[in-house]
Amino acid sequence: MIDKYSSSGDRFPDSRPDILLNYTHSDPGSLPGTFRIDKSAQSPEINLIDYNSEYYQYANHLTPTECVTYLSTETVSWVDVGGLGDQATLKELGEVFQLHPLTLADIVNVPQRPKLEDHQDQLVVIVQMVSSVSKNREVWLEQVSFILKENCLLTVQEKPQQDCFNSVRDRLSKSKGTIRQHQADYLTYVLWDTVIDSYFPVLEMYGEKIEELEELVLAQPSKVTLGKIHQIKRDLLSLRRSISPQKDMLRTLIRDGHVLIEERTITYFKDCYEHTIQIIDTLEIYRELASSLMDLYLSVVSNKMNEVMKLLAVISTIFIPLTFIAGLYGMNFNPNVSRWNMPELNWAWGYPLCLGVMLAIAIALSIYFWRKGWLS
Amino acid sequence: MIDKYSSSGDRFPDSRPDILLNYTHSDPGSLPGTFRIDKSAQSPEINLIDYNSEYYQYANHLTPTECVTYLSTETVSWVDVGGLGDQATLKELGEVFQLHPLTLADIVNVPQRPKLEDHQDQLVVIVQMVSSVSKNREVWLEQVSFILKENCLLTVQEKPQQDCFNSVRDRLSKSKGTIRQHQADYLTYVLWDTVIDSYFPVLEMYGEKIEELEELVLAQPSKVTLGKIHQIKRDLLSLRRSISPQKDMLRTLIRDGHVLIEERTITYFKDCYEHTIQIIDTLEIYRELASSLMDLYLSVVSNKMNEVMKLLAVISTIFIPLTFIAGLYGMNFNPNVSRWNMPELNWAWGYPLCLGVMLAIAIALSIYFWRKGWLS
Amino acid sequence: MIDKYSSSGDRFPDSRPDILLNYTHSDPGSLPGTFRIDKSAQSPEINLIDYNSEYYQYANHLTPTECVTYLSTETVSWVDVGGLGDQATLKELGEVFQLHPLTLADIVNVPQRPKLEDHQDQLVVIVQMVSSVSKNREVWLEQVSFILKENCLLTVQEKPQQDCFNSVRDRLSKSKGTIRQHQADYLTYVLWDTVIDSYFPVLEMYGEKIEELEELVLAQPSKVTLGKIHQIKRDLLSLRRSISPQKDMLRTLIRDGHVLIEERTITYFKDCYEHTIQIIDTLEIYRELASSLMDLYLSVVSNKMNEVMKLLAVISTIFIPLTFIAGLYGMNFNPNVSRWNMPELNWAWGYPLCLGVMLAIAIALSIYFWRKGWLS
Amino acid sequence: MIDKYSSSGDRFPDSRPDILLNYTHSDPGSLPGTFRIDKSAQSPEINLIDYNSEYYQYANHLTPTECVTYLSTETVSWVDVGGLGDQATLKELGEVFQLHPLTLADIVNVPQRPKLEDHQDQLVVIVQMVSSVSKNREVWLEQVSFILKENCLLTVQEKPQQDCFNSVRDRLSKSKGTIRQHQADYLTYVLWDTVIDSYFPVLEMYGEKIEELEELVLAQPSKVTLGKIHQIKRDLLSLRRSISPQKDMLRTLIRDGHVLIEERTITYFKDCYEHTIQIIDTLEIYRELASSLMDLYLSVVSNKMNEVMKLLAVISTIFIPLTFIAGLYGMNFNPNVSRWNMPELNWAWGYPLCLGVMLAIAIALSIYFWRKGWLS
Amino acid sequence: MIDKYSSSGDRFPDSRPDILLNYTHSDPGSLPGTFRIDKSAQSPEINLIDYNSEYYQYANHLTPTECVTYLSTETVSWVDVGGLGDQATLKELGEVFQLHPLTLADIVNVPQRPKLEDHQDQLVVIVQMVSSVSKNREVWLEQVSFILKENCLLTVQEKPQQDCFNSVRDRLSKSKGTIRQHQADYLTYVLWDTVIDSYFPVLEMYGEKIEELEELVLAQPSKVTLGKIHQIKRDLLSLRRSISPQKDMLRTLIRDGHVLIEERTITYFKDCYEHTIQIIDTLEIYRELASSLMDLYLSVVSNKMNEVMKLLAVISTIFIPLTFIAGLYGMNFNPNVSRWNMPELNWAWGYPLCLGVMLAIAIALSIYFWRKGWLS
Repeated sequence: MIDKYSSSGDRFPDSRPDILLNYTHSDPGSLPGTFRIDKSAQSPEINLIDYNSEYYQYANHLTPTECVTYLSTETVSWVDVGGLGDQATLKELGEVFQLHPLTLADIVNVPQRPKLEDHQDQLVVIVQMVSSVSKNREVWLEQVSFILKENCLLTVQEKPQQDCFNSVRDRLSKSKGTIRQHQADYLTYVLWDTVIDSYFPVLEMYGEKIEELEELVLAQPSKVTLGKIHQIKRDLLSLRRSISPQKDMLRTLIRDGHVLIEERTITYFKDCYEHTIQIIDTLEIYRELASSLMDLYLSVVSNKMNEVMKLLAVISTIFIPLTFIAGLYGMNFNPNVSRWNMPELNWAWGYPLCLGVMLAIAIALSIYFWRKGWLS
Repeated sequence: MIDKYSSSGDRFPDSRPDILLNYTHSDPGSLPGTFRIDKSAQSPEINLIDYNSEYYQYANHLTPTECVTYLSTETVSWVDVGGLGDQATLKELGEVFQLHPLTLADIVNVPQRPKLEDHQDQLVVIVQMVSSVSKNREVWLEQVSFILKENCLLTVQEKPQQDCFNSVRDRLSKSKGTIRQHQADYLTYVLWDTVIDSYFPVLEMYGEKIEELEELVLAQPSKVTLGKIHQIKRDLLSLRRSISPQKDMLRTLIRDGHVLIEERTITYFKDCYEHTIQIIDTLEIYRELASSLMDLYLSVVSNKMNEVMKLLAVISTIFIPLTFIAGLYGMNFNPNVSRWNMPELNWAWGYPLCLGVMLAIAIALSIYFWRKGWLS
Repeated sequence: MIDKYSSSGDRFPDSRPDILLNYTHSDPGSLPGTFRIDKSAQSPEINLIDYNSEYYQYANHLTPTECVTYLSTETVSWVDVGGLGDQATLKELGEVFQLHPLTLADIVNVPQRPKLEDHQDQLVVIVQMVSSVSKNREVWLEQVSFILKENCLLTVQEKPQQDCFNSVRDRLSKSKGTIRQHQADYLTYVLWDTVIDSYFPVLEMYGEKIEELEELVLAQPSKVTLGKIHQIKRDLLSLRRSISPQKDMLRTLIRDGHVLIEERTITYFKDCYEHTIQIIDTLEIYRELASSLMDLYLSVVSNKMNEVMKLLAVISTIFIPLTFIAGLYGMNFNPNVSRWNMPELNWAWGYPLCLGVMLAIAIALSIYFWRKGWLS
Repeated sequence: MIDKYSSSGDRFPDSRPDILLNYTHSDPGSLPGTFRIDKSAQSPEINLIDYNSEYYQYANHLTPTECVTYLSTETVSWVDVGGLGDQATLKELGEVFQLHPLTLADIVNVPQRPKLEDHQDQLVVIVQMVSSVSKNREVWLEQVSFILKENCLLTVQEKPQQDCFNSVRDRLSKSKGTIRQHQADYLTYVLWDTVIDSYFPVLEMYGEKIEELEELVLAQPSKVTLGKIHQIKRDLLSLRRSISPQKDMLRTLIRDGHVLIEERTITYFKDCYEHTIQIIDTLEIYRELASSLMDLYLSVVSNKMNEVMKLLAVISTIFIPLTFIAGLYGMNFNPNVSRWNMPELNWAWGYPLCLGVMLAIAIALSIYFWRKGWLS
Repeated sequence: MIDKYSSSGDRFPDSRPDILLNYTHSDPGSLPGTFRIDKSAQSPEINLIDYNSEYYQYANHLTPTECVTYLSTETVSWVDVGGLGDQATLKELGEVFQLHPLTLADIVNVPQRPKLEDHQDQLVVIVQMVSSVSKNREVWLEQVSFILKENCLLTVQEKPQQDCFNSVRDRLSKSKGTIRQHQADYLTYVLWDTVIDSYFPVLEMYGEKIEELEELVLAQPSKVTLGKIHQIKRDLLSLRRSISPQKDMLRTLIRDGHVLIEERTITYFKDCYEHTIQIIDTLEIYRELASSLMDLYLSVVSNKMNEVMKLLAVISTIFIPLTFIAGLYGMNFNPNVSRWNMPELNWAWGYPLCLGVMLAIAIALSIYFWRKGWLS
């Protein structure tokens, strides 16, 4: 499934770019809430972290039903699901967490447009996380769903082996720090903030790519460069489409609040919101730069062509008259027939004179082009 | 009438594209509510499905008056009309369902801009459905009108043989499932959702077309490619024009609600609304990509032209001086007249020397062009 | 005055396009409400239709004062003025209808930006009507002003011989139908609707022009095509400028209502409003298509140029080396002086060898170009 | 100081265009309210018109203090200041009219962005007036500030010799008409309306320029044409920047009203507001046309180049093979050495045959190009 | 650290432009509020100015704790921190001023998007200051943070040696003027106004650059020009990104006010707000001009290419037929074999006739091209 979304800007146009994800949709006329399970995907792996400021417990490879006992306690329970390959487990999960059938379908049928659903006793947040492998600069989008309920948070990802949340898991296990002293709403913030921060390194990568392309366009414009510019425009459109709804979701959350989110956590979400604006600002600038690069390319190529044309014109224009003169005296008119027939051929100074005329023409034309600035 | 709206992206520029539908309009100065019947269109075929959770009845080829008895019952009645070819039947239908003359005219005079009309005892929804025949990738737009009243729903389509709603009819007849347990408002949702979901496969088709064109533009830019890009821009504009009002209609419905629509059904319409946003987002991206493709095309062609020019310039520039020299020694000045007249011709090493000079010029120019990067 | 606004898309660039009307304005520093009468314009011709559901009377060539008696009755009076050539009559008209000096100036100093003025006892609507003569596809804009008062409607047009309202006059005289049973507000709706519907045939004409140009651009791009595209962009901008304010005016009217307009008539104005949106939607699409056509043109021409260049390059590149070889053996070095001087000339197989080498070069280059795809 | 803002569209690129005014700004870190006096500017010349419907008095060359006596009366006093060259007088003026230090600085440090300041007992309006000298089509922007207080209006302009307000002064002195019967708020309207109306003739001039350029681009595209198009875009941007805030100011004034402005004067300001919208509409259309002209230019030039290329290709392609054949039989292979060496030279019909072949080739190629449509 | 943001428009494409700052961001998954200290940066240098209208004291090189005594007094204390190189000092500062951990992180982790945070007892303003060194036209962005509390203002900059605030420090020490008589809110205004005014000279510089480029593009378009235009677009995008949020912040402040800001100071902030609008207006115009310049460049190059092509075509087309004729009579057909073989060679007037034909062709073609306007 990774391959389905991955995009490698460097391999274009050989490999087919896939970051431009088409959202999943049900077949027209199908039952609302139908699942579209990718059989080859991994089965859900359910892990659970139960904690408060004093206490920490980790359980892995649970079934949905095994989670129930943890959910009723006053400690914060983070149920961490990875993998969407098994319909039965996912349905069971939906029942344990009392999810609306449409919500569950949105969680399972990846990718969806990021959205925020405000039910009275639960808050559903579906977002897109971005990650890149630095070596070959591949970029993936992966859907992450958060379901916040009283004292518990359910997160569902597409794959079990995720790295981006590992630092949060570490902080939870090792320290009795900030997260452990807060409720599930703060955990939601920390994880969502991690998702949003995952856009920054990718943005930086695109910034570098654009700078490389700027130099490339001015130095060696080629078809490959063009393909790369188009590819970057495409990727930036996709990234904007996945981050832009998150900004709106955060603004809604900050403005309206939610019964499950404490006032002091809202301050943190505001910081999150600022980050989404920063990302969108930067994406917008990159898009304008990428468009400007396309214009730049066209202008650079036109400029090169103009130089080539000028060289051709200079060489042709100088030599064409000379070659004509040479051709003229290569004609075989018989000078012996009359004195009008090419008498020059028998002049004593005919040849030097001819060379002199040629030289004069060449010099005159060179001066003319030099004055026109075509020789610089 | 199918032909009037059909559009085949592949046959351009041979066939005339028609998806860019001009909305129907009355002749200036005509009576408000006048019908414009296409005589060649099919007569309306009226079918009726009457159901509740316990009971299911199907009646076909009814007259409008025969529907009346079903409408007064407490069971949900879906009156399903296809074909707009007969004015009298349509007028009768309007009377049975107490439609405003302007509303009836909008239903009959297809195509109209999608619209939502909120009368106290009825909700009128006019939308555009899209369908494509996968083999030759033709795309049609067809108008569907919904009139929701207490315990009954009237749908009017342009043609009787529609496929897109068949899956809903099947679900109604076979199962006692979700639809059968809800009222007419839920049926409206299910059908409208089907209409909106009909855009997704078409979008996917355009996504594939754009990808094919991207490869084509970089590999073999031709006039046919250009025509296709322009055609796609045109189709995307039409699709946006037909889906965009539906988004606004759904937002209005969700925000204001309606006496005929239950609170819990609103949740489903929200899902519908999300889908329209997804479609519009994707259309927007496709449009930007199509515009970028046109720029790409221009740049690729300029690039190719530059390469052609460089080759021509290299060949010309190398051979023009050589040909001049050859012409020079083809002149017929008489070397016997004086010792200044082409004495080279009688030198023992004249010819090898001449060849050597030519070779030297050719090599020097080749090195010059190689340094300039024109030979790569 | 017709000529001042007329625009013929087909005669460009010979005739000067005038649809891009500059709004009339007073001289800076002149008295507010000053008239700018075009002396050559026709004198106002005042006709009056007085009617209710039972009764119908037609009077023509009235003076403004003669209208007064009709206005005080309970029957609906439609005072229909055409022609703006006489200041005194217009002033008198203003007094009879108690028009604000600035309003009267706006009615007289055509063209004005469409506007809606809401005075307590009168509603002023100034709009632009469009009409085209189908034979030579000329398009005119003409200003129409409506002043709605209790039981009477004053309409002022630029010319007396107008066709577009004739169908309404006919309906009024012949039938006792819908219009005759309503008040002056309904008459206003019917006339304004006629004005708005007058845009549809013109839009259709532009739609056809764009389709013709699409084919022309791909088949035979020429300077005339370019001029036509630019002209269409220009006309569409003008049309949008004249219809766009009408949309806003209708929205204001629907939202705020007016004491002179009954609730049930508002429903009809909503229909009118939908039409303006349809028109603007279509104009917007046409404008994007026209812009895309300009890009298309550039790309088609670049493509053509590339083909020309390739042909030139192929022919030149093949023949230049051959001509050089021919020139080489046309040199007159004396083979008798030494055995190094062009001994090939005296070889028995010199000439066939030379031809063979030429053929080999030509074939090799042809294969090279065929591989590069330049010969297709 | 006039020269600093003047712009001559016709003299470009020789003269430096200055209509793109950079707003004046204080040096970073300077005291708020600091004056930036242009020493070379003219000293303020203070004139005063004191009037009511019965009475009219004119006083010129006053000092600010001399104005005080007029201000306290119930008659309307128009204090008309021109010239910004003397700091002391301006400070004194500020004290007499009780201006806020920042307001006074805005009046003095021209040019400023147009702005409306609503103080309880005074209304400050700062706008940009435009004027053109018709002969050489130069355009200037000049700042005008209005300070409306009870029974008095202070206007400050950059230069004493202004023409645009002269017609108002004349009307005040000569007639006892409309202005004389109103208060200072009506005078403000009349003057501001004059300022806004000053944009119309300039707009008309740009409309004519664009039409001239349209014809020029299609007929004789040159670098000078390009420079003019760019210059027009630049000027239109500047004009929009100076008129656009005035629209917002008028909207604010109409919506919120002001204690110093009577209800009936608001109606006049609405008319003013309509004019600003007309101007902005027209500017927007002109800007789109100017952008379209740049595209047109590029397409026209490409088209011309294509024609040149086609001619070159036709001539070259026809003559290159012929010249090659001529060169072939100019070779000096010795026909006497063997019967393979150029026996054609000694054929009786060799020369006519050769000419025939050449003619055949020329005709064949001509037909080929004629079929391709390159000879039209 | 200066180098990290500096941008020199003149050195492009040699030096890498850095004004397009990527905002600092925390590593995904890191603890909220983590510092990212640049070890090479300077240590914070803390200076303090304590004043009221009567009293002035200056203390430098303080520790955060040493500031505490000043803060509790009723005099205004300006704590002026420059340099971000030492984590411990910054943390201590955060405690002394009771800053929220996220706020402190935003102050330290430069650059951030400008933002306004409204805490009850403190107002946090983070902005970007711009400065240019006039000699080589380099532009820097530097972050400045303001924390306004009752009777005290904390400002934090990236470097201790700042010039832009020096004029304010001077005014504070020397005079008992305006600032000394106001509270800390007025000081905030003065400093922020200084920050905003710092954009004006930079704007002027870009205005000059654009004018230079306009002349350059029309006179000598080259690749370097192109690079500079792209660079300017890039810089303007960055500047807009740093000033645009400040406009929104000021609007929020003016609309909502703050308990720490007096009513009369709000008037000053309004002036500040006007300045940001002026800056954004001008940036917008510059951006449009820069885009137009790119189009201009392309058109100028196309125009030049067209001229080159025309010259080449004229020269080639005139000489190619002549050279062909010369070649024709250079053929070696034996006139002695038959009377059909090149009898012209032995005509008495053969050569003059041939020259005459050549001249006629040259003149005919020259007239043709002159008529086509290619010789002008």
